[in-house]
Amino acid sequence: MPTARDLTITEVRLTPILVADPPLLNTQGVHQPYTPRLIVEIVTADGTTGVGETYGDTKYLELARPFAEQLKGRKVTDVNGLFALLDEVAVAAARVDNAVDVGGLRGVQTADKLRLSIASAFEVACLDALGKSLGLPVHALLGGKIRDTVEYSAYLFYKWADHPEGVPAEKDDWGAALDPAGVVAQARAFKERYGFGSFKLKGGVFPPEEEIAAVRALAEAFPGHPLRLDPNGAWSVETSVEVAEAVGGILEYLEDPALGTPAMAEVAARTGVPLATNMCVTTFAEIKEAFTTNAVQVVLSDHHYWGGLRNTLHLAAVCRTFGVGISMHSNTHLGISLAAMTHVASTVPGLHHACDSHYPWQSEDVLTERLTFEDGAVRVSDAPGLGVTLDHDRLAALHRRWLEDDGALRDRDDAAAMRIAAPDWLPPAVPRW
Amino acid sequence: MPTARDLTITEVRLTPILVADPPLLNTQGVHQPYTPRLIVEIVTADGTTGVGETYGDTKYLELARPFAEQLKGRKVTDVNGLFALLDEVAVAAARVDNAVDVGGLRGVQTADKLRLSIASAFEVACLDALGKSLGLPVHALLGGKIRDTVEYSAYLFYKWADHPEGVPAEKDDWGAALDPAGVVAQARAFKERYGFGSFKLKGGVFPPEEEIAAVRALAEAFPGHPLRLDPNGAWSVETSVEVAEAVGGILEYLEDPALGTPAMAEVAARTGVPLATNMCVTTFAEIKEAFTTNAVQVVLSDHHYWGGLRNTLHLAAVCRTFGVGISMHSNTHLGISLAAMTHVASTVPGLHHACDSHYPWQSEDVLTERLTFEDGAVRVSDAPGLGVTLDHDRLAALHRRWLEDDGALRDRDDAAAMRIAAPDWLPPAVPRW
Repeated sequence: MPTARDLTITEVRLTPILVADPPLLNTQGVHQPYTPRLIVEIVTADGTTGVGETYGDTKYLELARPFAEQLKGRKVTDVNGLFALLDEVAVAAARVDNAVDVGGLRGVQTADKLRLSIASAFEVACLDALGKSLGLPVHALLGGKIRDTVEYSAYLFYKWADHPEGVPAEKDDWGAALDPAGVVAQARAFKERYGFGSFKLKGGVFPPEEEIAAVRALAEAFPGHPLRLDPNGAWSVETSVEVAEAVGGILEYLEDPALGTPAMAEVAARTGVPLATNMCVTTFAEIKEAFTTNAVQVVLSDHHYWGGLRNTLHLAAVCRTFGVGISMHSNTHLGISLAAMTHVASTVPGLHHACDSHYPWQSEDVLTERLTFEDGAVRVSDAPGLGVTLDHDRLAALHRRWLEDDGALRDRDDAAAMRIAAPDWLPPAVPRW
Repeated sequence: MPTARDLTITEVRLTPILVADPPLLNTQGVHQPYTPRLIVEIVTADGTTGVGETYGDTKYLELARPFAEQLKGRKVTDVNGLFALLDEVAVAAARVDNAVDVGGLRGVQTADKLRLSIASAFEVACLDALGKSLGLPVHALLGGKIRDTVEYSAYLFYKWADHPEGVPAEKDDWGAALDPAGVVAQARAFKERYGFGSFKLKGGVFPPEEEIAAVRALAEAFPGHPLRLDPNGAWSVETSVEVAEAVGGILEYLEDPALGTPAMAEVAARTGVPLATNMCVTTFAEIKEAFTTNAVQVVLSDHHYWGGLRNTLHLAAVCRTFGVGISMHSNTHLGISLAAMTHVASTVPGLHHACDSHYPWQSEDVLTERLTFEDGAVRVSDAPGLGVTLDHDRLAALHRRWLEDDGALRDRDDAAAMRIAAPDWLPPAVPRW
């Protein structure tokens, strides 16, 4: 029998940061030059520190802070208990109502989803600490990996060469991509740098015919490579059907062509193209309607939305049970979350689609060593915990950037960022086309 | 950083045993005086032994043996890998076909379900070994308990006082229960001995009107206590609806009144009584039809059928997602499985129904100390692993009984047991009434 370790949480550190983000375009606007993330560190009595990350916007911080206070004295093994505790804290703090804020890129925003996105960072940090303390990789805490590498897809964006002039920003070397040739050049760079074998284009930026042309150019440049197009619900049902008819034959799947489950169900019924989503199915409560109406064929899980790695496994089981595919969604994130995604993905049976990741776009990270892609895949770490190490100097530097911000960047707002270049810009009414 | 333990499996011991079982009646016949179980011990390189148990009939042993051979050299953390390995072994052994054998009390028997029932014992043994080696209770390996006790229901049976004369058997002190008064007396004894607050009657034994009378007698004797009736699919839809109309108002739920999902769906549509099942939903493949036709309102999980504790959590997540209740089924089992059930149940959100357990009927066990019920509940152990200790002398004695059996009892056959008292008995055609 081993000496029992003291897995009691003695300290929780929350560090909001701003990380560089290139001028990537989507239907709402453009990415800010810096985007907020929250880094969570959980320290246990035996001296282990676990890390997690999630969205860093103010509304997340406002709930994460009182929640962190309540964690001291609990154990890192008690991940199931995080959810009830977070609900209690949310009610006590009275900072969260159940108002629904339709739109945006993260699907419908509800208080429940906000809480789960917060819980996810703490769950990952608990699992990282637990794994480190026990000498086990996180995947072993999830039942063990069933594959040694996890495949990712190239996440292509329409993109300006630079953020608007005069706006403080980090420079990137990707150049502009504003037409089919630019998209193909970007895809070629992704393939050369990381070896990705499949490509996803973030659409909803230009009229559908231009994006159809971009997809056709990709298909011509990369024959046999799976392709995806994701306009973030910018299209009507009619437009979605037209696009499906035009390029359905060369797409692995079409992602969120139209907004909402009924619209997706109608598109699905009228086309043979598989539909993927990270917008109409983002919580367990949304599954029943979507699955019973055959609205989606692939759910793109995001462990932040879904409340962590264990919930991601539950989601995968629900999908498997109903014959719906599973893969992973990504929003701007750093290496901690990429490691977490890789651990959980390594344990999911029937992962037939390469996962999404923004990570190649993030030139900055808080790790001593960045995760790398080989042949488009990340090797599953067998080191204890997530297998990543926090670079405290780097974390402090990115936190200083957050401290020095006047508040303009602390809440990600792609429309506001777009207004710097186009002062009259408003998030387009949906459907945009 | 801890010293890494060597969690490699160095030895797997399989011990088939025969355990005493009282003359409990069901629609198929009567329990044999001794029933087969298989005890699994998994030993790791660091000297830890984990235990599991499952069905012990010959067809389980025939696959468990070659499977056990293949486990050496793998790690106890690799529970996700058990399933693919078992499939490989089953194919290689060519001992399992996919023939479907409708009927019996365990739902439809398929090769897949047989494999999962075997996997469950090995998964539990791995988790027990892992927990012992790490100094963590099994519930902590499942995300942590969210309750300190797990409530069970009294599992009432129509019962003879003794097994047929001349048949070697252990004597029990429960007496006969063959009419409403006998059932109420048995329920009273259950309540006195164990404090159970809810009662389930195994029906399908006598014509429905007699079982209706028994349920009414229970309701009168125990006002306010949840009641359930389970005829194991012995009734037609019409009979099911009639019983539901007669006693629906006093039942917590009606369990498997009719056989098969379409029949259950029809009963559900025609009555307001919630229907529970451990017969028409016993694998993930059966869920979609049942849930989309609203055939069942409560799934009674059996971690043996479903392939272990992690799969049970996945099942619970599927049920939660579709608004279907969850509780636990039980077949003749010993303390290892009761401990496993208790650990997993302690982590399941929304467990609103007391779990079933045959355990009070099992006077014999293979543990140094029996698990106990207080106020109808089992306290969740925080000791490492399952928190149970194998009594090797007792195990050896029950194994000797298995060795000495001429084969008559090595495959549970309730109809054959009944034929000793009623030579012309055949399992009744379904529906029986």
